[in-house]
Formats: sequence, C-alpha cells, structure tokens
Amino acid sequence: MSGSVPTMVDPFMKALGLEAEIPGPGQARVWGVVRPEHLNLHGTAHGGFLYTLADAAFALASNSHGVRAVALSTHMEYLRAVGAGERVEAVAEEVYRGRRAALYRVEVRRDGELVAVFTGWVHRFAE
Amino acid sequence: MSGSVPTMVDPFMKALGLEAEIPGPGQARVWGVVRPEHLNLHGTAHGGFLYTLADAAFALASNSHGVRAVALSTHMEYLRAVGAGERVEAVAEEVYRGRRAALYRVEVRRDGELVAVFTGWVHRFAE
Amino acid sequence: MSGSVPTMVDPFMKALGLEAEIPGPGQARVWGVVRPEHLNLHGTAHGGFLYTLADAAFALASNSHGVRAVALSTHMEYLRAVGAGERVEAVAEEVYRGRRAALYRVEVRRDGELVAVFTGWVHRFAE
Amino acid sequence: MSGSVPTMVDPFMKALGLEAEIPGPGQARVWGVVRPEHLNLHGTAHGGFLYTLADAAFALASNSHGVRAVALSTHMEYLRAVGAGERVEAVAEEVYRGRRAALYRVEVRRDGELVAVFTGWVHRFAE
Repeated sequence: MSGSVPTMVDPFMKALGLEAEIPGPGQARVWGVVRPEHLNLHGTAHGGFLYTLADAAFALASNSHGVRAVALSTHMEYLRAVGAGERVEAVAEEVYRGRRAALYRVEVRRDGELVAVFTGWVHRFAE
Repeated sequence: MSGSVPTMVDPFMKALGLEAEIPGPGQARVWGVVRPEHLNLHGTAHGGFLYTLADAAFALASNSHGVRAVALSTHMEYLRAVGAGERVEAVAEEVYRGRRAALYRVEVRRDGELVAVFTGWVHRFAE
Repeated sequence: MSGSVPTMVDPFMKALGLEAEIPGPGQARVWGVVRPEHLNLHGTAHGGFLYTLADAAFALASNSHGVRAVALSTHMEYLRAVGAGERVEAVAEEVYRGRRAALYRVEVRRDGELVAVFTGWVHRFAE
Repeated sequence: MSGSVPTMVDPFMKALGLEAEIPGPGQARVWGVVRPEHLNLHGTAHGGFLYTLADAAFALASNSHGVRAVALSTHMEYLRAVGAGERVEAVAEEVYRGRRAALYRVEVRRDGELVAVFTGWVHRFAE
C-alpha cells in the first residue's frame, strides 16, 4: 500500500490537521504543520502535540497487521524545540513483534533534523 | 494560589478544552472532557489526548517555581481506555527537584479510577 | 508471609549480596550494601547495581501471585549517587494488574532518602 | 581507538566478567557471557545483568568526550530471554548530544539477534 490513506486518519489526528500513510506492514508516516493553537507557554510546539504526531504513527504501524493493538507503555525524548509554522513528520518502524506484544520506534523530524524520539509497546489481541 | 488559573492555560490546552489550577509550587491539576474529536480508531480517547492532559500538568508543575523548565524525557503507562463524554483529571506532583533537572509524576484518573500514569523529567534553566 | 524469604533470592541477587522479603501479594522489599565491586568509574554505586536492586523487587512482586511474569519494559530514574558501604533498599508496589500485563513502581532509598525510582511492566502468562 | 580498553572496565563490570572497547567518541561496545550466577528465578539471564551490560556501554559512550556524564533516566525493553552460557553484546550509539544533556541508544544482541533495547539520558557537567 502506498500514498495517503485517508481512512486511517482518526478524529484526533483530523482535529490536529495530521495526515498519514502506511508504506507497508508495521510502518507508518504521519505529518503536519505546527499551528498557533498547538503551542505551549514557551511559544513552541506543545509536547502533547509532538507526542500525538508520534503516537499516531505508532498506532497506525501497530494496527497495520490486522490484529487489534492498544498502547501499553510509551516514552518520548525531546531533543529540540519546534516553532509555529514548521512542518514535522513522524516515521514509525517495528523493532519487535511477538504474538502478544510489539515494540515500535518513531523518529520525529523537522526538515530532516531529528527533534524527538518515541518508543512504544502495544498489547496485541489474540490472533 | 487556588482555584482555576486561566492565564496558565496555553493555546494547545485551550484547543483541547482543558482547564487547570496550581494548588502550590511543584503541583498542578488539569482536567477536561473527552470529546468526539479526541477519539482514536478504536473509538476511545486518543493516547495523545490523555498524554497531553498529563503533559500539561507536568509543564505547569515544573514551571511553577519561577525558573523556565522544558521537557527532556517522559513516559506514559496506559492502564484503562476512556470513552467519549468522560471527564478525566491529571494531578502532578514533584518527585525530585535539583538545580538543573526535576522529576514529576502525574496520575490520570476518571472518577477517581487510575487510567494512566505519566513520569517526566525537565531540564531547568540556570537560576 | 513476613520475614526474609531465602528461597526467593535468585542466583544474581545472591551474587550481589541482596536479601529479600515479600510482605504480601504484589509487594516486595529487597536490600543490600554497596560493596567496592559494585562501583562505577565515578566511584559511586553502578547504575546497573541500583537497577538490579529495583528489578529484583519488581520480579519478586510480579511473580508473587502464582502466575509466571516476565519483564517487558522498565525505566529507572536516578536522583542521587550512592557511595560504597551504604545500605540501599528497594520497595515494590503494584500499580495495576490486568490478566495479561501488570505495572509496578519501585522506590530505592538510602536511610529513607529517595535515590532512584523504577517503573516496570510485566507480561503475565495465561492463568 | 580499537581493541579492548582495560582501564575502561569499572569494578562492577569486572565483577560480572564484562569486557569493553570504545570504537570512537560517543560509542561503546560491551560484551560478556551469561554465567550461572547471572540467572534469575526463571533460569534465564537476570534483567539486571542484561541491563548492566547496556548501562555499561551507555556509561562508556557518554563519558568518552572528556566531560563527566552521569545517568539521569534510562529505559530497557526486553524482547527475548537469554540462557546461561550465551554471549551477549551491547553496542551504544549517540542519538543526541547537547551541552547539558545527551541521549544514547544501546542494542543488546546474542549472535546478532536483538534481545533488548536500552535508551538513556545523561546529565553532562559544564565544559
């Protein structure tokens, strides 16, 4: 599968203006632009906004195998602040997939520069 | 300080309908209602929405000492799904505060029931 | 059950001189003394030693229900350095227990002072 | 620099029979064999042993720039169990390095197969 997959955009992604594609099983790419309403008190992209970008890629990648997957544990490392108007992109890859659990790593970039790293485990429902 | 602190609500919190108060230094409480536009593909509150609730409490608590604090590393444990229309609340407490770094723990509850746990480190700018 | 539970001390705990007790289901307490062979290049307790103390309490607490539990994801927050000859203690408590996964929080203290915080998820094998 | 760097092996690494080399600044490789005294109650390598392997690589990589670095926050994802007699190797790489903080990712492998993933932040003391 390639190209934008509109049906994969859930309500929260839509509310934040995020778009997505699933390059292949276990993978996902989500992107968007930091709008004024996505900022924090420091005037930069809210941690929750950048996290949601990564989390959305994680959710799409982990649910791409036809088995329902729900987030169990995630972590986010913030490397660089992002400003309003900037375009950010999250790319998820599968690090490990077992029958009951799977691990994903997501890199968040702005113009190719790494701004955050996300790691997440899902619980997978029995096949 | 007690009661709602409107000036503490940043643009992203406002966009998500979140409200906040700072009961004391190093503390914060943030609450909101899960709206239809906050849902994921499974029809429950998006992981990014619940994270943002916790992250907002973390940001308010860590910036309550008059020293600028920015998120470095966070993690989120998801225990129970939350549905549309439900009210959720995040309460942040300071676990440790050093000169350069501080650690916060945030509990997210729905009607008193724990639904997620968040932990976050901030980098603190020199006093 | 109370008091030291020698049969609960696994080979690695024994090699590090750690002792343990299980105050009740879902709980554990592990303690030991930092010996010269537990130090790092900075001359303080090795991060791996303090982690093992916490991880051992996590393993005992999560395996205390009669269902085999194996670690999936853990994190450790280091607050204060510990020196040789000091006694450290880890206390684990259950934050959440589902059928397939459970979450524990462990506090590591030296003379009552918090020196590290550990969080860990286990995968639980079907009952 | 290549080959084993004996002076880099701290007391705890020595106690566990770990060896190390620093291929270049910001990098480290640590390896060892799982001995009977490194096992847990399930008869596999103790989580604390595998963590220490990764943590040692993290410590060497983060201290390789001539600035003292101490661990702040780490996490460990356990993918596969390792048995007694097996050789494991941890390879650390620098994901990000700022003036005050740096982030490392460590992969733990057994015969090339990924068995655990570690991520760690250090606080760096002023240059």
